[in-house]
Amino acid sequence: MKIDLRSDTVTKPTKGMLEAMVQAKVGDDVFNEDPTVNELESKIAHMFGKEQALFFPSGTMANQTAIKLHTNPGEQVICDKYAHIYNYESGGASFNSGVSCKLIDGVQGMFNAKQVFDAINPQDYYYSKTTLVELENTTNKGGGACWDFNEILKIKSVCQENKLGLHLDGARLWNALVAKNETAKQYGEVFDTISVCLSKGLGCPVGSLLVGDSKLMKDALRIRKVFGGNMRQVGYLAAAGLYALEHHIERLADDHKKAKEIGKVLAKLPIVKTVEPVETNIVIFELNNDVDEKSFMQKMTSKDIHIISMGGGKLRMVTHLDYTDTMHEKVIQTLKNLTL
Amino acid sequence: MKIDLRSDTVTKPTKGMLEAMVQAKVGDDVFNEDPTVNELESKIAHMFGKEQALFFPSGTMANQTAIKLHTNPGEQVICDKYAHIYNYESGGASFNSGVSCKLIDGVQGMFNAKQVFDAINPQDYYYSKTTLVELENTTNKGGGACWDFNEILKIKSVCQENKLGLHLDGARLWNALVAKNETAKQYGEVFDTISVCLSKGLGCPVGSLLVGDSKLMKDALRIRKVFGGNMRQVGYLAAAGLYALEHHIERLADDHKKAKEIGKVLAKLPIVKTVEPVETNIVIFELNNDVDEKSFMQKMTSKDIHIISMGGGKLRMVTHLDYTDTMHEKVIQTLKNLTL
Amino acid sequence: MKIDLRSDTVTKPTKGMLEAMVQAKVGDDVFNEDPTVNELESKIAHMFGKEQALFFPSGTMANQTAIKLHTNPGEQVICDKYAHIYNYESGGASFNSGVSCKLIDGVQGMFNAKQVFDAINPQDYYYSKTTLVELENTTNKGGGACWDFNEILKIKSVCQENKLGLHLDGARLWNALVAKNETAKQYGEVFDTISVCLSKGLGCPVGSLLVGDSKLMKDALRIRKVFGGNMRQVGYLAAAGLYALEHHIERLADDHKKAKEIGKVLAKLPIVKTVEPVETNIVIFELNNDVDEKSFMQKMTSKDIHIISMGGGKLRMVTHLDYTDTMHEKVIQTLKNLTL
Amino acid sequence: MKIDLRSDTVTKPTKGMLEAMVQAKVGDDVFNEDPTVNELESKIAHMFGKEQALFFPSGTMANQTAIKLHTNPGEQVICDKYAHIYNYESGGASFNSGVSCKLIDGVQGMFNAKQVFDAINPQDYYYSKTTLVELENTTNKGGGACWDFNEILKIKSVCQENKLGLHLDGARLWNALVAKNETAKQYGEVFDTISVCLSKGLGCPVGSLLVGDSKLMKDALRIRKVFGGNMRQVGYLAAAGLYALEHHIERLADDHKKAKEIGKVLAKLPIVKTVEPVETNIVIFELNNDVDEKSFMQKMTSKDIHIISMGGGKLRMVTHLDYTDTMHEKVIQTLKNLTL
Repeated sequence: MKIDLRSDTVTKPTKGMLEAMVQAKVGDDVFNEDPTVNELESKIAHMFGKEQALFFPSGTMANQTAIKLHTNPGEQVICDKYAHIYNYESGGASFNSGVSCKLIDGVQGMFNAKQVFDAINPQDYYYSKTTLVELENTTNKGGGACWDFNEILKIKSVCQENKLGLHLDGARLWNALVAKNETAKQYGEVFDTISVCLSKGLGCPVGSLLVGDSKLMKDALRIRKVFGGNMRQVGYLAAAGLYALEHHIERLADDHKKAKEIGKVLAKLPIVKTVEPVETNIVIFELNNDVDEKSFMQKMTSKDIHIISMGGGKLRMVTHLDYTDTMHEKVIQTLKNLTL
Repeated sequence: MKIDLRSDTVTKPTKGMLEAMVQAKVGDDVFNEDPTVNELESKIAHMFGKEQALFFPSGTMANQTAIKLHTNPGEQVICDKYAHIYNYESGGASFNSGVSCKLIDGVQGMFNAKQVFDAINPQDYYYSKTTLVELENTTNKGGGACWDFNEILKIKSVCQENKLGLHLDGARLWNALVAKNETAKQYGEVFDTISVCLSKGLGCPVGSLLVGDSKLMKDALRIRKVFGGNMRQVGYLAAAGLYALEHHIERLADDHKKAKEIGKVLAKLPIVKTVEPVETNIVIFELNNDVDEKSFMQKMTSKDIHIISMGGGKLRMVTHLDYTDTMHEKVIQTLKNLTL
Repeated sequence: MKIDLRSDTVTKPTKGMLEAMVQAKVGDDVFNEDPTVNELESKIAHMFGKEQALFFPSGTMANQTAIKLHTNPGEQVICDKYAHIYNYESGGASFNSGVSCKLIDGVQGMFNAKQVFDAINPQDYYYSKTTLVELENTTNKGGGACWDFNEILKIKSVCQENKLGLHLDGARLWNALVAKNETAKQYGEVFDTISVCLSKGLGCPVGSLLVGDSKLMKDALRIRKVFGGNMRQVGYLAAAGLYALEHHIERLADDHKKAKEIGKVLAKLPIVKTVEPVETNIVIFELNNDVDEKSFMQKMTSKDIHIISMGGGKLRMVTHLDYTDTMHEKVIQTLKNLTL
Repeated sequence: MKIDLRSDTVTKPTKGMLEAMVQAKVGDDVFNEDPTVNELESKIAHMFGKEQALFFPSGTMANQTAIKLHTNPGEQVICDKYAHIYNYESGGASFNSGVSCKLIDGVQGMFNAKQVFDAINPQDYYYSKTTLVELENTTNKGGGACWDFNEILKIKSVCQENKLGLHLDGARLWNALVAKNETAKQYGEVFDTISVCLSKGLGCPVGSLLVGDSKLMKDALRIRKVFGGNMRQVGYLAAAGLYALEHHIERLADDHKKAKEIGKVLAKLPIVKTVEPVETNIVIFELNNDVDEKSFMQKMTSKDIHIISMGGGKLRMVTHLDYTDTMHEKVIQTLKNLTL
């Protein structure tokens, strides 16, 4: 029994999802004629109270498109030092949009409105022009932390006063909505653009969507084409998304419960230095300095439990749809009995 | 009975293909763990005698990646005035790679080695540096024309003597291979990179591949990530490709036969000015100046026969997997009896 | 006596100009405190009836800035196939702005309003978006030809109807104004931005200016900084410009007269195939096919007369401030007596 | 008597320098025919023991060119959080080269080899690829601090082991050479490219140079053209540089002495919180929290003493060629007697 806790992206479609996929009505989405894609885009747009949604082959492309929508070359994006767009998108913000990031030294990947205000460059022409603020909810490198929505509202005010766009990388927004009992609509009201992912907590094979108002999204279609993200009979993938929206959101609470339980066990282990607060489905922890990371990883692998290193001594475990109760029991027991 | 001759991209998976898709073994391709994607990539690489192949969500992304692999910003790509990369990729060559195209005024989208040589800029620093030559086979805007392989060999010599990369947009290369009785391997020997499409003649829902040698393809992986083309359990789409390679190549001859028959009928119609030579599955023709294009299109649409305008008075019909014998009979009869 | 007809950029300051330079009041232009630069910018802006002018180290930078002001990455600029921005700016339009050029096959570097209209891409998202039209007056590669101002007005209409910017590369606009008895103001009324050069016909050592309205020019300042075109006590160069505006414009008629005389002599030579019509200070001609270009060039060089090849069998001679009557006589005699 | 301590860029040519300028032999540098530019480039290249030097209209362009020489789009440059290229070049690194900066949290703008090593991204394709390390000597925002050359040698080792380019922004390198008794050659041996400025400590009106080996500098010429940095009879500016190399380097010690004296006086003022260590010609200090910056600035301005704010509560005074002994006395007295 392979237990894969490296990421929630490793899930495979359930039987129900696969059935939905195979029965999907499809068409050529380049001609805008795929009914399943259209249905998914309508549904997501409606959930967020936005005029339009667009299907993307990846969250990276959805984010990269959003950055381009809000910026011109030479401008600057304010984001956390842990931001996925800065750390894990292969330098795409600079490659695709010619922009740089002004990093805020936040807490668990989150920051406050004052920090945003302070990060805005002066107007003088020799400074890079600040034009976009980007948030991630939940934070990936921040250990699945959820933002305080009131702080987001304050950040929105700073953006409005300073004419800055506001984009949300919602790769794991579904987890935040469930954990904090929030709605997609309240996020749609605040952010200019939001990317959401189908293949993490929701368990779909492929896909992300970007939502925004019509004017922006018309340009988004053009940018998606420039990147080569226009696909043909892609309704098979969209069908998985429609299925997941129906069946896989509420159950995220179960992933969160398991993650918290793992976190508690880890916190008690003598070999563990710290565990970041667990709010959703991500557990990030550090081993004591005298514990060899490789040995620990090997030990886990020898039990067929797979976790991932985040660099800088941090390890990550992510619970998900394919992580069953049986697996969970084994992980808990393995950790409790761990000797190095 | 809707007859869609706008493009060979409108095909939907056959029952066999859909079964192959639903039974595919998948994994997270971002971790390089999707066995079906890996199998397809190996198979295609082997067909072309190249070290590696990489799966892409679209032919546009495969081409845009190839352009980036061969060029640096400010440089110039030699291609035909009909080239897809110049005309139909939304300015991507300039957006993504910062390069421009030097257009050759070819015949049916094809040119000769001397024209390539003449299009190379002088070395002086105030000229854009020429670094890549791009061919399309078959030519889309050129009416599905197939290149003379001997001319390609001569162009290769010019490239080698002038240190230019050579990329093939093989969106419809399968059609050329069948029509001219050529092999993938002979193309792999000549071109540095080749993009091939699964969703046109081959009838798959989504996907293209780029082939090349390991060093180039290692960078291709990075560029695909920058564009956001990395997908997760994408083996469902790759499975369709594997199925198509087995079942849908030889049958392209049937598409070609039908296209030629359409071409012959068109050539005899008094309302038709010219029909470009039909070599594969594309028929491009022009109406007489006194014939109203809109009326013609409407007439066809009223019979549920859908064709597409290429701009500049040119109309296009493309035969494909979903264009049946019955449909063909109806199209032939409709054209023969057409009155405006 | 070296006679340099390669370009009008080779001139050296006259005694009066050098005196004006050395006496210039200067300051740090990065702080906007150079009074001579400010005076020159005001004067040029006023001449063209534009709100602002900005000093640049070169015409290339002024043009490249203008292209960036009017476009976003992926968009397209309509210009003649002879355009300096396409041919001689080292691929800068793609490097700096990520745009491509749609080339019009004009006559002597000039085209008409219908050709502009036909060159505008359709709105569909897979086409590059057309956003700028660029003209060059006089045309360099077109042999110093001057545009018909009425045609420019018609092109302006096309631009307005299709929301396209209109930029003039006025590297040799002064020559056109003198040759056609036109005013800077009439050009300022039509074009959104105009670059003019101080170092060609006007005989200054260095410098070009870009004129436009305040909103555009505020961005121009930022782009000039991005390119690194902000200089410090640059009033020494601006002073030459102020001097030239006063003393070196009317005298261009003399350059034109000499160029026409050269053209007439060339036209009668048996070794010359064609001479392009001479309207200003540039003479472009082709030798007969049986005449060896190298021998011709060598013959001229042996008489210390230096001309330049434009590629494609075309040769260019340019008259200017440092080309004296004595030199002219010698050139005329040399040509008349030429034997190969 | 206006006393301008805002920057050492505000200096005007001395009588001797102006004479050298006006007597300069010039030519068209686009044809590589300006003897004074060529002499200056040779001289500077020789000083640094590099094969070639190239004249630029600004230090920003020299730096931006160097960044482009060492990187491809999407890659990352390691530099200090105070780096001029990150803070004061208008986002040029991202605009021109499509790269981002990985900022090191150094001390006075300087960092150590271990920090460089730690800042290198892993090789995985989803990280931006690290390809360049950039240092600034002296540091501008760091208060004119001079690097420890031994640390530079250690950083060089890290660069060599990890195949990273190493560029020096030597806008005020002359100051460091004088202050630390170092030679240009020892810097030339370590760095791949170095930009040096003529218009700061050296007192020239305009200009910077970039040095490097022939292969790199051949590309530099092309990039300078792309930015529009090619100028014509620019020997007038180069002549100032040649003069300054002869007459204005040793005297920098005097600027340093004055700056240190200002620093000492400031350190004793009750209104001053901190003064950064003064090593060369820059004094950076902060006022106590209860002191109003505006009032302080106004007080100084009322005495016709002009200083500049660096943002974040930091103020800067820079001594230079035009800051005389008399001025210095007045500044010292004014500071000593200052009441708010």
